[in-house]
Amino acid sequence: MIIINVHPHRLFHNGYEPEEDDVVMTNPLTSAELDLMHAWWRAANYLSVGQIYLKDNPLLLEPLKREHVKPRLMGHWGTTPGLNFIYVHLNRLIRRERQPMIYITGPGHGGPGLVANTWLEGTYSEIYPDVDHSLEGMKKLFKQFSFPGGIPSHVAPETPGSMHEGGELGYALSHAFGAAFDNPGQVVVAVVGDGEAETGPLATSWHSNKFLNPIDDGAVLPILHLNGYKINNPTVLARLDDAELLDLFRGYGYTPHVVEVADPDDTAPTHQRMAEVLDTCMASLAAIREQAAAERARGEALSRPRWPMIILKSPKGWTGPKNIDGKKVEGYWRSHQVPFSDMTPEHVAALEKWLKSYHPEELFTRDGALMPALSELAPEGALRMGANPCVHGLVSRDLKMPDFRQYAIDVDVPGTRVAEATRVMGKLLRDVMRDNAAARNFRLFGPDETASNRLNDVYDVSGKAWMAGVHAEDEDNDLLQQNGRVMEILSEHTCQGWLEGYLLTGRHGLFSCYEAFIHVIDSMFNQHAKWLKVTRDMHWRKPLPSLNYLLTSHVWRQDHNGFSHQDPGFLDHVVNKKSEVIRVYLPPDANTLLCVTDHCLRSRHYVNVIVAGKQPALQYLTVDQAIRHCTKGLGIWEWASTDAGVEPDVVIASAGDVPTMEALAATRLLNEHFPDLKIRFVNVVDLMTLQPSSEHPHGLDDHEFDALFTTDKPIIFAFHGYPWLIHRLTYRRRGHDNLHVRGYVEEGTTTTPFDMVVLNQVDRFNLAIDVIDRVPRLANRSAHVRQLFLDKLIEHKNYIHAAGDDMPEIKNWTWSKP
Amino acid sequence: MIIINVHPHRLFHNGYEPEEDDVVMTNPLTSAELDLMHAWWRAANYLSVGQIYLKDNPLLLEPLKREHVKPRLMGHWGTTPGLNFIYVHLNRLIRRERQPMIYITGPGHGGPGLVANTWLEGTYSEIYPDVDHSLEGMKKLFKQFSFPGGIPSHVAPETPGSMHEGGELGYALSHAFGAAFDNPGQVVVAVVGDGEAETGPLATSWHSNKFLNPIDDGAVLPILHLNGYKINNPTVLARLDDAELLDLFRGYGYTPHVVEVADPDDTAPTHQRMAEVLDTCMASLAAIREQAAAERARGEALSRPRWPMIILKSPKGWTGPKNIDGKKVEGYWRSHQVPFSDMTPEHVAALEKWLKSYHPEELFTRDGALMPALSELAPEGALRMGANPCVHGLVSRDLKMPDFRQYAIDVDVPGTRVAEATRVMGKLLRDVMRDNAAARNFRLFGPDETASNRLNDVYDVSGKAWMAGVHAEDEDNDLLQQNGRVMEILSEHTCQGWLEGYLLTGRHGLFSCYEAFIHVIDSMFNQHAKWLKVTRDMHWRKPLPSLNYLLTSHVWRQDHNGFSHQDPGFLDHVVNKKSEVIRVYLPPDANTLLCVTDHCLRSRHYVNVIVAGKQPALQYLTVDQAIRHCTKGLGIWEWASTDAGVEPDVVIASAGDVPTMEALAATRLLNEHFPDLKIRFVNVVDLMTLQPSSEHPHGLDDHEFDALFTTDKPIIFAFHGYPWLIHRLTYRRRGHDNLHVRGYVEEGTTTTPFDMVVLNQVDRFNLAIDVIDRVPRLANRSAHVRQLFLDKLIEHKNYIHAAGDDMPEIKNWTWSKP
Repeated sequence: MIIINVHPHRLFHNGYEPEEDDVVMTNPLTSAELDLMHAWWRAANYLSVGQIYLKDNPLLLEPLKREHVKPRLMGHWGTTPGLNFIYVHLNRLIRRERQPMIYITGPGHGGPGLVANTWLEGTYSEIYPDVDHSLEGMKKLFKQFSFPGGIPSHVAPETPGSMHEGGELGYALSHAFGAAFDNPGQVVVAVVGDGEAETGPLATSWHSNKFLNPIDDGAVLPILHLNGYKINNPTVLARLDDAELLDLFRGYGYTPHVVEVADPDDTAPTHQRMAEVLDTCMASLAAIREQAAAERARGEALSRPRWPMIILKSPKGWTGPKNIDGKKVEGYWRSHQVPFSDMTPEHVAALEKWLKSYHPEELFTRDGALMPALSELAPEGALRMGANPCVHGLVSRDLKMPDFRQYAIDVDVPGTRVAEATRVMGKLLRDVMRDNAAARNFRLFGPDETASNRLNDVYDVSGKAWMAGVHAEDEDNDLLQQNGRVMEILSEHTCQGWLEGYLLTGRHGLFSCYEAFIHVIDSMFNQHAKWLKVTRDMHWRKPLPSLNYLLTSHVWRQDHNGFSHQDPGFLDHVVNKKSEVIRVYLPPDANTLLCVTDHCLRSRHYVNVIVAGKQPALQYLTVDQAIRHCTKGLGIWEWASTDAGVEPDVVIASAGDVPTMEALAATRLLNEHFPDLKIRFVNVVDLMTLQPSSEHPHGLDDHEFDALFTTDKPIIFAFHGYPWLIHRLTYRRRGHDNLHVRGYVEEGTTTTPFDMVVLNQVDRFNLAIDVIDRVPRLANRSAHVRQLFLDKLIEHKNYIHAAGDDMPEIKNWTWSKP
Repeated sequence: MIIINVHPHRLFHNGYEPEEDDVVMTNPLTSAELDLMHAWWRAANYLSVGQIYLKDNPLLLEPLKREHVKPRLMGHWGTTPGLNFIYVHLNRLIRRERQPMIYITGPGHGGPGLVANTWLEGTYSEIYPDVDHSLEGMKKLFKQFSFPGGIPSHVAPETPGSMHEGGELGYALSHAFGAAFDNPGQVVVAVVGDGEAETGPLATSWHSNKFLNPIDDGAVLPILHLNGYKINNPTVLARLDDAELLDLFRGYGYTPHVVEVADPDDTAPTHQRMAEVLDTCMASLAAIREQAAAERARGEALSRPRWPMIILKSPKGWTGPKNIDGKKVEGYWRSHQVPFSDMTPEHVAALEKWLKSYHPEELFTRDGALMPALSELAPEGALRMGANPCVHGLVSRDLKMPDFRQYAIDVDVPGTRVAEATRVMGKLLRDVMRDNAAARNFRLFGPDETASNRLNDVYDVSGKAWMAGVHAEDEDNDLLQQNGRVMEILSEHTCQGWLEGYLLTGRHGLFSCYEAFIHVIDSMFNQHAKWLKVTRDMHWRKPLPSLNYLLTSHVWRQDHNGFSHQDPGFLDHVVNKKSEVIRVYLPPDANTLLCVTDHCLRSRHYVNVIVAGKQPALQYLTVDQAIRHCTKGLGIWEWASTDAGVEPDVVIASAGDVPTMEALAATRLLNEHFPDLKIRFVNVVDLMTLQPSSEHPHGLDDHEFDALFTTDKPIIFAFHGYPWLIHRLTYRRRGHDNLHVRGYVEEGTTTTPFDMVVLNQVDRFNLAIDVIDRVPRLANRSAHVRQLFLDKLIEHKNYIHAAGDDMPEIKNWTWSKP
């Protein structure tokens, strides 16, 4: 039997060439199958409405009354029936092909739908045994939703099978590709709402298909769910005509297939069409893999597949009430959240009618169990999407870590040798990549900056993922590899989304980024940090590999790109999140960076932020010293201090590579001019040690802090970032009133490296003047030295304005023992 | 004469239907015109290379030596020749049609190009008279670029004609549309680099064409500049085949025209092709306007035009050296920045050869002036793109502001009446929109939340801009208006970009956003705040209307959406920027919100952040009290205080609507149980008053601060955001050690409103306990009251877990006079 389902005229005009699978229906579902699937869908819809509205009388065994309805109605109905529709159709494929699938719910508002389906398939009750398949269990299922002490209204960490909160929009597709990388057994289905599709991060993430290898990675099947409306507007994509819409997705590199609900009440044709399109897509995925395998067998480069994707046009709030109070609800934005919420008798009756339209008596026993015939629609065991072990962290392996000490820089005399810290780190990352190549569970992410950030030694082991074609003139086209493990796209959003998807499925990675532009993903970081906080104590999820950032090309060396590239504020943003999951490191040199990197790559369930420069810089610690220093997180540098065995006159402290050099230079200047001045030099690697131990697990006890920083001596602190952050971390410390912090105060332009620190007064001369101004016993004998330093600042300005570069004495400054 | 220019096979395959203007060249330039334009282009390229490399010998009047070259070479060559090419071609159109144009340089790295062109057209020297058309002027032009004390390397605020820094990528197109809205006389040309095109914000901003009215707005002509490479990768879009590329831009709703450089050395055909395509585009723009005018004359809805756009494929570093040291440079990523920078004798010779390839002797007199024939290519006066008054703030008019007092809520007894603050604000915004309708210089921006945020009274005056078609079933389709002034798209990036473009061209606006998701545009805010800081003291730019944010649907009332929607950290982010341009307001009720809104809409050159709830909330101040309170920025609320005429025992302070209610409730609880306790109640509207006056212009002097907060009494501060922010602002205050701040500490889920404050201990009971624990004279008589409050918290938990809603005594709490 062959029937025409969608409206041909909507496809054919504007020159679109129809393909057979677009318009000719073969009705793959038998009538029995269709009935069963439709029943599951009705059950899921019933349970969804029940969650939104009911706290009692879950099966309507008695007439519905106001007191069965929750007092505050919260939740989102609009997207839910479509999500439920997709779920039951995917289950059919999973059962038939024993194909594991991951379901990513872009419209995260559809929480009740995913809870309903995982309850139907049994995974929900396995994790939450009191929410079982009984009348009492169903009542709990309903009541707990969006209820105090219950579960969130969105697809949340609490939802089995979820790896994507979806509360904030834009990341469904990049999460999906991240989950698919190195996961050849999985098909990741990403449902993208048409609201979400308007966001920037989503709009560019369609291009992720230029980075997916059809053999070595899993597949991503995007389903654009056009239900036409946002909160109270039509969506942009829903108002394109079909020709434009299909052009867009062909332009994005996909083969789009349209499933359109012609009549919301006559669902059988839509079931058939959806089944057929999904069959076509699965066949396409198989064909793509086959073709790729054949190409590889012939030793050819793989073609970039035109992956299938589905455009599902269904009414918002499908199967819900057509009208309420004479206003359109189904197929309109009014069904976005709770379609009606003032529970007048008329509305209670409308709700009862709506619920009964699903015929719960055909779906559930009077004891609240699912009818046996329906239960059989669920896939088995771990094939159930709510039990996919990939998304609960259950298949995560630790990285094999080489001994990082082998990459260490020799440091004989501190502050005399120059090296590029990130280049040294690159050697460690190279070998991490090498040692875990077989496990295929480590990738490096960054917006076109891996080489610029001097991590390019990794290219000895793996090139950059690139399926978009290599030109003959690409001289280093060997770095563009179809299964490369370095992920570069000029979209911080996509890098972050891919990495999150990769981590959320248990693998490891590191994101290297220009410091200023990591703010692009501030909001994504928020969501991931919240995910980590909430999942931390879930027994059925295992700790995830940490989200590791390397922020380089940092504020102090954006002298060439200028003011727009200068912003060290990501740290301020990060420390607002829960201390249990947040770590911040500012290694001052290459060996400390090695040590910190090793620690971060071994850790789990944190966000680790590492700030380290890529430019040639002085080296201070041997690797053994670095290990001791990093283990404590901060400490006195005896070799730079002159307070051995006595109380210091002043503490000079630093965090960050460039501020540390300036603080050391200031120390040395002061040594020269005031040989009797007792200076204690403290360097901080682990920023969170500064916070009280009550506030952060790494925080020092007060007595430890006092022992290091004193309670009564001036502390001059040269900090990498905005100076207020140090005050925010230390305001409860006894010595806080003596603390004077220099850092970036939003001054900069295109200039020299040293001028950058001068503009922000975190240079050696200003720091030395800060000391002079605060140490009482220098008061009567320092005026000429103070003036000398001020003169030096003027000399600096004159010099750079004439010569265009820093004075040799600054540029070539190295430490010398006092 | 008709010739074929681009490769037809690249256009014809895959079903593409060629249009005549795509492939048939009519060679619109006469040979004389072409020669002159080519000469201008050579001049611009010469000056660009000169800026990057030279500090002396600008016209090569003597042989080039190492000492003529700058010591540190910084800048970006790759994109520059393409930008210069576009500039000269636009000048031709401007002259011919006297059509004002705005040039938006997405590839902001091309700073030298825009500086070169504005110098050639004369605008540069008018603003910077010492950089004149003389040998000395040219030497200054070269030396200052990317040089200490000189100008930044990017297209920066310092560049005439610039309204877009472009250092961070992604916003060229949304800025362009923002500039075009309500600017019917302007054609905004937005050059989008193929690197930038990979970013999310850019990828979605193509859809801005669904919001542009062909009659009432200006036109945007996007030029996608495909030069193939980023820092060291190919770009994604450059590796699509033409069919896919054209599909993509048709899918985005444009009519794409391709200009491809077939032979980099044979530039005449490319000049002809570019001229022809631009002629076609200008003709299309005219046709679009004509058709729209005809439709409007017939009283019909306007069709959505398929606006023209150009894809310019040119080699990266076009006209630069082909190879250096045997490695490919022109047409490759190696030309991204400085193509070669170690100035060996060979490289000095290569540079000289490169510079001389432009034949400067044909372009400039030996005195450094432009040859007269070339000068005539520049448009006249304000038609020069470097002198467009729109982009220097010169055509900005103040808003007509109605008297905001007429919208005030009557408040007889503080804290007893309930109103929705943003709904009241909406009435003011409605009339601002009405009173400035003729001037067409006010719009409201937000991601689909104007009604949700209760600002919908504005719809009485103007609907939502929408050119994407209205369906018959859109019941309120009258709100979707082809020239609506409310701008809604579910992309915070696009909202922000549009608003910035609108402000940067002198108009006014307000962005209302869910508080948590404003972090999406953290990085865009950074760039705009930097722009404001740098332009603040430029005499030739006028102060811009302020960037106004309304953050609503805030953290305390995301009890329904849950944890993912809870983040008050934008304030922390904002206060890191220069205090001269940053303002933060937390009005506690509707009348203070009115007063603050009035102030913000009248202000210029600030970023104003207003945080205010949309939910029904208690009202405290009459409008006259509100005016006095807002004028001071903070103050004692006598009616809530019990310390009249005496020293208080404790200061209870608040900032933000929900914390203020809780702090008042705590005050009232304490009054009841300890009638003799002297409480001073302080409310803060203008957050920056807390900072020392040395740090922020709104900051209180220390003696004022001490007078309000005391220096020795406990201060319990209930704050809207993360509590550390208050410490960061006040750590230098004398009373800081007595300050105890409660705020959001990253605890939340889907629950009740009151439970949100309980989870974060900023509720009335916890605040009251904080007071009890800190006021010494309560120590011996408060144990039972303390226990009572703890019991209340337990009662609350039990109640909400049973009932799903807050206890009536909490929900319906109002202030009562002690």
